[in-house]
Amino acid sequence: MDLTPFDHSINERDWEMETDGTVRFALVGLGWFTRDFALPALEECAYAEATVVVSGSAEKAETVADEHDLAAGVTYGEFHDGAATDEYDAVYVGTPNAAHLEHVEAAAEYGKHVICEKPMEANVERAAAMVEACEDAGVELMVAYRMHTDPLMRRAREVIQSGVIGDVHQAAGACAGPFVTRDGPQGWRTDPDLAGGGALYDLGVYPLNTIRFLLDDDPQSLHGTVVRDDDFLDGMDLHASFTMDFGDGVTVTCRASYDTEFEDTISVLGTEGRLALEPAYVAGEQKTLRVDQGGDEIELTAGGDEIREEFDYFANAILAGRDVGPDGENGLFDMRVLEAIYESDETGRRIDL
Amino acid sequence: MDLTPFDHSINERDWEMETDGTVRFALVGLGWFTRDFALPALEECAYAEATVVVSGSAEKAETVADEHDLAAGVTYGEFHDGAATDEYDAVYVGTPNAAHLEHVEAAAEYGKHVICEKPMEANVERAAAMVEACEDAGVELMVAYRMHTDPLMRRAREVIQSGVIGDVHQAAGACAGPFVTRDGPQGWRTDPDLAGGGALYDLGVYPLNTIRFLLDDDPQSLHGTVVRDDDFLDGMDLHASFTMDFGDGVTVTCRASYDTEFEDTISVLGTEGRLALEPAYVAGEQKTLRVDQGGDEIELTAGGDEIREEFDYFANAILAGRDVGPDGENGLFDMRVLEAIYESDETGRRIDL
Repeated sequence: MDLTPFDHSINERDWEMETDGTVRFALVGLGWFTRDFALPALEECAYAEATVVVSGSAEKAETVADEHDLAAGVTYGEFHDGAATDEYDAVYVGTPNAAHLEHVEAAAEYGKHVICEKPMEANVERAAAMVEACEDAGVELMVAYRMHTDPLMRRAREVIQSGVIGDVHQAAGACAGPFVTRDGPQGWRTDPDLAGGGALYDLGVYPLNTIRFLLDDDPQSLHGTVVRDDDFLDGMDLHASFTMDFGDGVTVTCRASYDTEFEDTISVLGTEGRLALEPAYVAGEQKTLRVDQGGDEIELTAGGDEIREEFDYFANAILAGRDVGPDGENGLFDMRVLEAIYESDETGRRIDL
Repeated sequence: MDLTPFDHSINERDWEMETDGTVRFALVGLGWFTRDFALPALEECAYAEATVVVSGSAEKAETVADEHDLAAGVTYGEFHDGAATDEYDAVYVGTPNAAHLEHVEAAAEYGKHVICEKPMEANVERAAAMVEACEDAGVELMVAYRMHTDPLMRRAREVIQSGVIGDVHQAAGACAGPFVTRDGPQGWRTDPDLAGGGALYDLGVYPLNTIRFLLDDDPQSLHGTVVRDDDFLDGMDLHASFTMDFGDGVTVTCRASYDTEFEDTISVLGTEGRLALEPAYVAGEQKTLRVDQGGDEIELTAGGDEIREEFDYFANAILAGRDVGPDGENGLFDMRVLEAIYESDETGRRIDL
């Protein structure tokens, strides 16, 4: 087994085109991810920059704008009314799930391209409305599956596509950890109206979407098992497991939980080898890819800069006039899968997608 | 986290009692496992020894008996007719699945205790008949889940029971590999009449039974997804995935496959930590146990002698007059689970156990 080609190209930007200028971003929602990950990542970008921040609090927006020397800090209301539209070309939406649609609709109304956090919205109907709003306005919509722009994940996908592990038959992924805990600060993730779902929505989308990306294929049917919590999740899912049939003898099992030790894994099993990533999804940390072929094992470690890569990938595509992905239809498919998992759990039946 | 107590006791025989003498075994079925693993293990045992071998071929039986300096080598027919019953106290059955019942019935008829290979038989009815035959004859029946006597697996169970990883919520196990291949020598495992099932029967019982042992609990319902093969498995399962609900917020996912690279893993996820074994099931090789508690990770490596331990455990219990386990009811439960997985796959429904 020789992974030298993948190792040599480990940080290669296989999507990069020659372009001029930058895409200026308004960041909507100033939670911890926007402040601790998105803003610092944008400061490292070659093709993207933050110029505007948008928050429910005027004071918070202005403070963050000042700290980062941005053109403007405005409220959600001002953003919806078209404030500072000359100062940005695209919008990053990182608010609670159920608020995504209204902000994306506002962005589309002003002709701004969109990166929207995952899961897309609190339900399928609202996610579908988001896709429609962007199509109608002729703006690009990308769902913020940053795993697609993690260089190591892209190499893992190439390893699979190049046939190193043979024909894939099984894959498994788990994303779990005490991200939202019974005793800790809970915020919108414990509110069904704002979150739409529990651990499955918040964490289950990671293995789900990443395995779709790695296999370049989508599930055809699934079985789901969900454990709900009335104590602090108001009946939403605390743990979830689902098994998806991708057809052609490919079966994928995924797990998510809010109430366990961290688990952050993905593994893909083929006729000629096995590929595993651990950690696989955690933001801003190095990942390790392990490929095992008949006892011959190779490890590659890289990454941690996938959020910078995500913004630069999107901006470079916008500047070059290329389509972006994972697009709204990709994210909408995940929303349908999530709802099918709940339906399967409730009915006890396999659900066709 | 301190695993020192488990490390110090890593090879402890927590089941061992003071006894006299040995239990003499007749080994029924002289396939590779009996010859390469069971016979050498018995030569290392303190409480058990091989005295008789039984085969379909008189020549093979006699040759193996001579090679190992045993009291007798007899045919299946002679064994059923009561040959050499003075020379053995217990019977190990390692024939094709569908032949287990007749040999166990013969053993029971002559008042001999039994270790029967897993899965117990080719279907639930025959496995139930085996339990009944041993009960009626008043002989002990143990199913050969050697993972129960693997010292490292016993320590893993103690780690879980001692609360090191908190309350368990999820577990996953996979047993896969090219044990039976399209192009290789196929034997009885590719014959539905002899095997009863494919990869699920042959390999799926490893994670299924081991997780039941580790959690000291049984599933209440399950979902199964099976990929069948008409090419060389005559419609039996080539790949299988199943998700079991153990109640109390515990969900377990397992996978098995005959047509992939080796995978031999188990992981258990609790509120305070994560425990993993890799390899977990492979016969006669060292296993590694990894326990991770909030980034504090400890590894223990041991084992490879679980087959000797299995025979000595069983023999010591017989000599001491203790019950043995995993008993027939334990194995019969697995048979019901296996059939429920097929039923779930066929009907698309969750099956209650």
